[in-house]
Amino acid sequence: MPGLIDRYRARLPVGPATPIISLGEGSTPLLAAPRLSELLGVDLHLKLEGANPTGSFKDRGMTLALSKAAEDGARTVICASTGNTSASAAAYAARAGIRCVVVVPGGKVALGKLAQAQAAGAVVCAIDGSFDDGLRLVLELCERHPITLVNNLNPYRLEGQKTAAFEIVEELGVPDWLALPVGNAGNITAYHRGFREAVAAGDAAQCPRLLGCQAAGAAAMVRGVDIGDPETIATAIRIGAPIRRDEAVRAARESEGAFVAAADEEILEWYGRVSVLEGVFCEPSSATSLAGLARARADGTVEEGARVVCVLTGHGLKDPETATAHSAPTLRSPATLAALERIALG
Amino acid sequence: MPGLIDRYRARLPVGPATPIISLGEGSTPLLAAPRLSELLGVDLHLKLEGANPTGSFKDRGMTLALSKAAEDGARTVICASTGNTSASAAAYAARAGIRCVVVVPGGKVALGKLAQAQAAGAVVCAIDGSFDDGLRLVLELCERHPITLVNNLNPYRLEGQKTAAFEIVEELGVPDWLALPVGNAGNITAYHRGFREAVAAGDAAQCPRLLGCQAAGAAAMVRGVDIGDPETIATAIRIGAPIRRDEAVRAARESEGAFVAAADEEILEWYGRVSVLEGVFCEPSSATSLAGLARARADGTVEEGARVVCVLTGHGLKDPETATAHSAPTLRSPATLAALERIALG
Repeated sequence: MPGLIDRYRARLPVGPATPIISLGEGSTPLLAAPRLSELLGVDLHLKLEGANPTGSFKDRGMTLALSKAAEDGARTVICASTGNTSASAAAYAARAGIRCVVVVPGGKVALGKLAQAQAAGAVVCAIDGSFDDGLRLVLELCERHPITLVNNLNPYRLEGQKTAAFEIVEELGVPDWLALPVGNAGNITAYHRGFREAVAAGDAAQCPRLLGCQAAGAAAMVRGVDIGDPETIATAIRIGAPIRRDEAVRAARESEGAFVAAADEEILEWYGRVSVLEGVFCEPSSATSLAGLARARADGTVEEGARVVCVLTGHGLKDPETATAHSAPTLRSPATLAALERIALG
Repeated sequence: MPGLIDRYRARLPVGPATPIISLGEGSTPLLAAPRLSELLGVDLHLKLEGANPTGSFKDRGMTLALSKAAEDGARTVICASTGNTSASAAAYAARAGIRCVVVVPGGKVALGKLAQAQAAGAVVCAIDGSFDDGLRLVLELCERHPITLVNNLNPYRLEGQKTAAFEIVEELGVPDWLALPVGNAGNITAYHRGFREAVAAGDAAQCPRLLGCQAAGAAAMVRGVDIGDPETIATAIRIGAPIRRDEAVRAARESEGAFVAAADEEILEWYGRVSVLEGVFCEPSSATSLAGLARARADGTVEEGARVVCVLTGHGLKDPETATAHSAPTLRSPATLAALERIALG
């Protein structure tokens, strides 16, 4: 399969002179989930964004952000991020032959999570300050120097991310609901844009209702105010002040959608269920879309029998520790047939 | 994209009654590698098998093995494995609703590597014995009880794996050489079968020359004898007695191919290069195909300008520790513009 810029060139801000920086992103599986459908009383499909090259949906935006950076002759890109954004930025920058600097808060990051950025040769810099300090400094650096910002304030990021909506329309048509995790609210904004463009192009009759799913400890959209000290195990959406708040509010309103919050325990419960019942291993944060859908079914927001697509934003391999911590422990056994028989025959 | 059984149904041993157990495997990216091409003096393309659902090529075989197990009414599948096979078996068994038992050698396995199998709800059993003890016991169990073996002695595994050859022929045509890591020699056997079937179907003029790439400390094919105590950092191919030795010898001979060995240092060097120069993060073991190709270029086995496909068998996220250990360390900096400027401006 070609990468997503080649696939959707006519709907993206690229020209003949744009060098295409691609790692084969997009065209991710859309998988029917029969067991979860039964549990939830809906017709559920899972969009597996962890199948992207660096293991998350960020690659959709980064292929475009780095292609445009390369077109503009950028020599350095920078982002403040501790997770999926830095991994994606570093890989696409390597592919483009552009230097990448990743700024992370010192002392508050599991350094193992930076393995992808390090492997791609990015300069990983841990500052003696918070994530907010890092973002502020990065913005200031980009104002003063010819360095390209690839945090999600970069406008090309959402343009790339909207292509996931195109893929869903092509493969399944328009579902009744699309459920996805919401942190900075960039992705819900991108999906809304993608579905609206599909409608404008005559590919879809309408936009699905958008269900923005948040962690209860970082539910800035649900509560309508910024959260000073967001706290949740869903680290990818542990964000108190969504950058795209206004656009996300509009996306939910225009699509007759809703925002919903789920507790960490519910998120972990659905994280386990989708793996054990469907064989799909996602990031804990990704399961927020399932936990949110369960809430929305319980309170009647989502009707029985609705066709729903849940976006699983990242691969479970991003965080193996959480998997091990929430699974049955390894059994120990003597190396004898009798002992193994007892275990294998259950 | 449909899974690979739906895509290649006519060439696989499935019938109308076979339930299709799929996680959206196959259709993996085939990526041009311009910088490595220049370094190696060939026209190099990378087949990114880490993009499969559980992060390795094993999913191609497992979709078929579990579909056939489900067709046969299996209630339990079992394998002896410490890595990619167990992760894949557990996920597809979960998808099929079939119990999965994974037998691993006790005390010799980084338990974090089993996170995927644990997350999918497999029974993970660490025995007080070696991997060989485990395999022997598993074979004995399958003889005595209605338990289905999904180790690569299962004939459906190779049938599924051959589909990677079909994809390469469709997307690129037949390359001059196909380079891939060789441990148990199942995958080289599967590619050979796939290319021969593509020739028989009139889709390809001939089979590419197959370059079987081994780690020097486990080079049982190169040396023509079993290795009593194989040792290499490429753990996925740390195998001393290749199960498919005879078929692999035939594959190399009939395709006018070769076997080649590379030292661990070379494997790690190419593991780093493909990430830094192309943005592709693979398992250390996967880079054996690149290290082997470099050897084969140096000794003239592979001619200058040849079109080569290197198979990268697994995703780098399978082993983040190796990435961190072989990358530049994280920098520390005060949270000031001046300090960050010095770093960002290089």
